[in-house]
Amino acid sequence: MTPNLPQLSMTAAELAEVTGGVLIGDAAMVIHAIAPLDRAGPEELSFLSSAKYAPMLEETGAGVVLVAPELKDTPGRPRARVVVSNPHEALLSLIPRLYRPVVHPTGIHPAARIGRNVMVGDDVCVEAGAVVEDDVVIGDRTWIATHTVVGAGTKIGDDCQIHPHVSIYPHSRLGNRVIAHSGVRIGSDGFGYVQKDVGGQMAHVKIPHIGRAIIGNDVEIGANTTIDRGSVDDTVIGAGTKIDNLVHIAHNVRVGKVCLILAQVAIAGSSRLGDGVVVAGQAGVQGHVNIGSGAQIGGQAGVLGDIPAGETWSGYPARPHKESLRATAALFKLPDMMRRLEQLLERVKL
Amino acid sequence: MTPNLPQLSMTAAELAEVTGGVLIGDAAMVIHAIAPLDRAGPEELSFLSSAKYAPMLEETGAGVVLVAPELKDTPGRPRARVVVSNPHEALLSLIPRLYRPVVHPTGIHPAARIGRNVMVGDDVCVEAGAVVEDDVVIGDRTWIATHTVVGAGTKIGDDCQIHPHVSIYPHSRLGNRVIAHSGVRIGSDGFGYVQKDVGGQMAHVKIPHIGRAIIGNDVEIGANTTIDRGSVDDTVIGAGTKIDNLVHIAHNVRVGKVCLILAQVAIAGSSRLGDGVVVAGQAGVQGHVNIGSGAQIGGQAGVLGDIPAGETWSGYPARPHKESLRATAALFKLPDMMRRLEQLLERVKL
Amino acid sequence: MTPNLPQLSMTAAELAEVTGGVLIGDAAMVIHAIAPLDRAGPEELSFLSSAKYAPMLEETGAGVVLVAPELKDTPGRPRARVVVSNPHEALLSLIPRLYRPVVHPTGIHPAARIGRNVMVGDDVCVEAGAVVEDDVVIGDRTWIATHTVVGAGTKIGDDCQIHPHVSIYPHSRLGNRVIAHSGVRIGSDGFGYVQKDVGGQMAHVKIPHIGRAIIGNDVEIGANTTIDRGSVDDTVIGAGTKIDNLVHIAHNVRVGKVCLILAQVAIAGSSRLGDGVVVAGQAGVQGHVNIGSGAQIGGQAGVLGDIPAGETWSGYPARPHKESLRATAALFKLPDMMRRLEQLLERVKL
Repeated sequence: MTPNLPQLSMTAAELAEVTGGVLIGDAAMVIHAIAPLDRAGPEELSFLSSAKYAPMLEETGAGVVLVAPELKDTPGRPRARVVVSNPHEALLSLIPRLYRPVVHPTGIHPAARIGRNVMVGDDVCVEAGAVVEDDVVIGDRTWIATHTVVGAGTKIGDDCQIHPHVSIYPHSRLGNRVIAHSGVRIGSDGFGYVQKDVGGQMAHVKIPHIGRAIIGNDVEIGANTTIDRGSVDDTVIGAGTKIDNLVHIAHNVRVGKVCLILAQVAIAGSSRLGDGVVVAGQAGVQGHVNIGSGAQIGGQAGVLGDIPAGETWSGYPARPHKESLRATAALFKLPDMMRRLEQLLERVKL
Repeated sequence: MTPNLPQLSMTAAELAEVTGGVLIGDAAMVIHAIAPLDRAGPEELSFLSSAKYAPMLEETGAGVVLVAPELKDTPGRPRARVVVSNPHEALLSLIPRLYRPVVHPTGIHPAARIGRNVMVGDDVCVEAGAVVEDDVVIGDRTWIATHTVVGAGTKIGDDCQIHPHVSIYPHSRLGNRVIAHSGVRIGSDGFGYVQKDVGGQMAHVKIPHIGRAIIGNDVEIGANTTIDRGSVDDTVIGAGTKIDNLVHIAHNVRVGKVCLILAQVAIAGSSRLGDGVVVAGQAGVQGHVNIGSGAQIGGQAGVLGDIPAGETWSGYPARPHKESLRATAALFKLPDMMRRLEQLLERVKL
Repeated sequence: MTPNLPQLSMTAAELAEVTGGVLIGDAAMVIHAIAPLDRAGPEELSFLSSAKYAPMLEETGAGVVLVAPELKDTPGRPRARVVVSNPHEALLSLIPRLYRPVVHPTGIHPAARIGRNVMVGDDVCVEAGAVVEDDVVIGDRTWIATHTVVGAGTKIGDDCQIHPHVSIYPHSRLGNRVIAHSGVRIGSDGFGYVQKDVGGQMAHVKIPHIGRAIIGNDVEIGANTTIDRGSVDDTVIGAGTKIDNLVHIAHNVRVGKVCLILAQVAIAGSSRLGDGVVVAGQAGVQGHVNIGSGAQIGGQAGVLGDIPAGETWSGYPARPHKESLRATAALFKLPDMMRRLEQLLERVKL
């Protein structure tokens, strides 16, 4: 998106119409942009979706505000408000009407470096400084940004956005509408060695990695995330899964569809996640475990074994969330309890 | 800096003069470089600031040593020592006199790729292979290294050092004297989705990010760190804050001034840190929390709620540090205590 | 490696001969590739090394299977099996006979940017878009991939593989056969500041880093890993050590030989690891500690002090592994125990 560039405008009445919301106040108010309550001005639209931020409505300079139904009567200064069931979802329909998306010029820039036998679809954009090696296939309308490297034999689908500084190792597979942010590494060798005596000394001998990294449709991958290729098997990310920044996905991992994997998570080798799994930030999943569909894993959890479908686990080592909460709560009462137990033991002279 | 390149020299007497220290020993000793005690030679300066390393003073080959006052009588071999209140601080004044800094040649290299309507200040250095997109402003004496990409509409201040392989997404703001190390990503999209039914299936629909990433004056950002742009609000890093390697700063986070954020920390979306906050390595801060000014957060801590100003918290979930220490200490006594409690329960037949 | 490219073939008899294994079944079976049991076809070789996956042998379509001795009688469909003492090790000798490795064309591409006084060995490959700054030395047969930057004064040995998008800061040292994956940063400045009053305000003043990053022979470094240069001392990675993705090695750290450091580990400044140390994923090692040779550190462990040679430690704060296991096991019994203690205290009216 291009914030702060020439923007469009909408009236409060149009905002209500587009979002299917109920307008309260001045229908003629015109807004040109969206901003948070604490810095919005009279020509800007803001939003209130949580009671936590309700007091800010009395101080905001916003001209129009989207409000959730339960907050519609919150006292406040804006001259118009639009009551919508989900303000964040309403923003989804408004942003494209207020902000012009970046349009990448079509074509292969003469300063891109293109290998032999490369096949590109219609209306692709390959920027200057991008490197596309031999035998690559790129689908329609896909953007390969400057300074990105697409390894030999890779196939990329339609409508992908491959940001600057992405490395895609040879023979990777990307579906349609994949977004890879800057610094993403797809298909790097996994961490696999055989310990051998080499000339009288123990050495870690590298296992050549002949598997692939396969990324499904509609996957978004955050900045500086690494997804290793498989050793013999493939590493697979299911369609619709979203991965945050600085995540590590090891070799042979299979992540299901429509999962959410938050920042700095690590999934060790050969583990399998079902569909709709949510892994919160900085959690780690040990190798060779199975996480059932719909399972949720808490932040910083350390998963050392399988998790059944639909369950929420947390803590180290990860346990069902309620059990972890009870254990943690008990832990902080422990010093006092120990003192009392000592007194008791003293009395009964055990 | 340029270690091991043609260096300058100083005598022990000059070392004492420049650092304001007290010279003990041979004032005529000449040194050409700085090295740690265990590998310094007779023409090198070393330093001793901790009693832990005091025994090394008897074995060092260093010609001259900076010593802290409380260690000034430590027996040792160097022919001269200079007593200074803080040896590390003394090094700050000596390094520029012994090591010539790298000087980047002024100008825009013809092999840099510069967009339309780019404004650059005096004496900038834009290296070959750097990409500066349309409508960018670059301040005086700023260095844009080879293979760095500066997105459209970005403003960068004076005296910045943008190392190779940095990606700055469009419409970012960098103050003066910002240092961004290799692989830093500024302004990438945050992890924001609305869950919607799309054609009968649950999908995570991307929220376009129209906020910015705003980096204050004198901020240094470590290698491969990622700082997302705001969704509607901005992500802001306060002046004088230093961020280590592989850190994740999510969308809409506000970090205050003069903070220290160590390696692999993650700060989740919309959290706010006051001024002078220290977050130790691998700690995680949950979204939408407030960390008061001067608070300190321990390594690997998991912060799930607000922390008052000036307090030190640690552990998972993070608690005041003393409480965490007590709980952890108790935890390791727990197995023994349980055994004794079982005996007691056995006796009283509960 | 080049998966899925023109491959070679072997018969079951040849597989047995090359691996020193015992053939059972059809010696004439021909295979062209290697695949996991669940997707191998009749012209593919698969392998079974763990009883966990034994049931898959009845459903696999693989033509030939390598099996461990204890699993040799597992019922299954493949028409030939080869019994080998270690199937993973056997694969090491077979992969080069079935998959042609990538061969980088020899020479310095005219679109590489080479500084002054650069010395290169025989048969190097420096790709288009690579940047080699002044005074660099590159050994024989080393590959510098596209978009990699080698800083001034760096020395790289023979037979190294430096993948795309690697940044090597000035004056680094790499031994022979070093592999650096995409996004590796070697020699970036460490996180070192002196707190000083600057114009009435507390500031973190940067300590210029004049040490080096020194990488030994046969070291492999995973994608997006960062290894800082030393402040005054050097940062050193010992020969034969393997480092996974997204690892942080701080300034002045010394890692011994033949260590394994898994994904997202952080080693803080000036810590020292002996030889053969294994650090599991997401563990953190505090600054200035010593880890003895052969020590093993568990996943997500937080190491706050020295660890003796040969010991296995885990947990936060890290303790000997058995002690951590006992404490963790007790923690999850704690809520029940507390309830019983409360009952007891109630009865004895303490």
